[in-house]
Amino acid sequence: MESPSAPRPDAPRSINLAEKLAGFTERWQPRTVAEFNGHDIMVVKAQGEFVWHKHDETDDLFLVLRGELTIELRDGSATLRAGDLFVVPKGVEHRPVAREEVHVLLIERSGTPNTGDRSTAQPRRVV
Amino acid sequence: MESPSAPRPDAPRSINLAEKLAGFTERWQPRTVAEFNGHDIMVVKAQGEFVWHKHDETDDLFLVLRGELTIELRDGSATLRAGDLFVVPKGVEHRPVAREEVHVLLIERSGTPNTGDRSTAQPRRVV
Repeated sequence: MESPSAPRPDAPRSINLAEKLAGFTERWQPRTVAEFNGHDIMVVKAQGEFVWHKHDETDDLFLVLRGELTIELRDGSATLRAGDLFVVPKGVEHRPVAREEVHVLLIERSGTPNTGDRSTAQPRRVV
Repeated sequence: MESPSAPRPDAPRSINLAEKLAGFTERWQPRTVAEFNGHDIMVVKAQGEFVWHKHDETDDLFLVLRGELTIELRDGSATLRAGDLFVVPKGVEHRPVAREEVHVLLIERSGTPNTGDRSTAQPRRVV
């Protein structure tokens, strides 16, 4: 969505999140769409139950773009719909669960394994 | 938007961005709705032309939630609509412009003056 005076190809440009999400179908495989102060800005499609995990080095930001996502914590849970944001503080165990497919904007420090464990994590993909 | 098993009041909770935006009318006065890895997650209403500025210490993340926002750069511009994200790298001069009121999610390192200059910046407000 750029004006006729769009920046040069190497200049910062706008990123349409729905367009990025339309470009893949895999679930629980975040795609990095931008970088920001040493963080990956990612979009992810999810359905079903993820694994319980925590990140000792980073907070975990979820913003639901479409659908419904429950963040289970050891002492409760929160259900997020489009426009709802949730920050899981670093070190806090959590499990994302989605009954139907949900589209989420996810922000984590670059290099964070998505399961909290490099041996089981998805490789980071850039789109 | 919390389930019946909502976390305790001191536990992390979901934040509805539209609800936060409905709570104030002032423009160009970001409200912090959450903190994340030393950053302020903010919502802001904007209309008109902001000042040209840059942030030497932080990238600047804009995600348009409603309306249309143009980010002018010295060598071009990008027009963002709902679901469009834009990262202005640190040190890059920019000017946000909105013909009509726009609602934006904004992320900056905590303590960043919104104009790039403490003497003209809005104080940070938490909602």
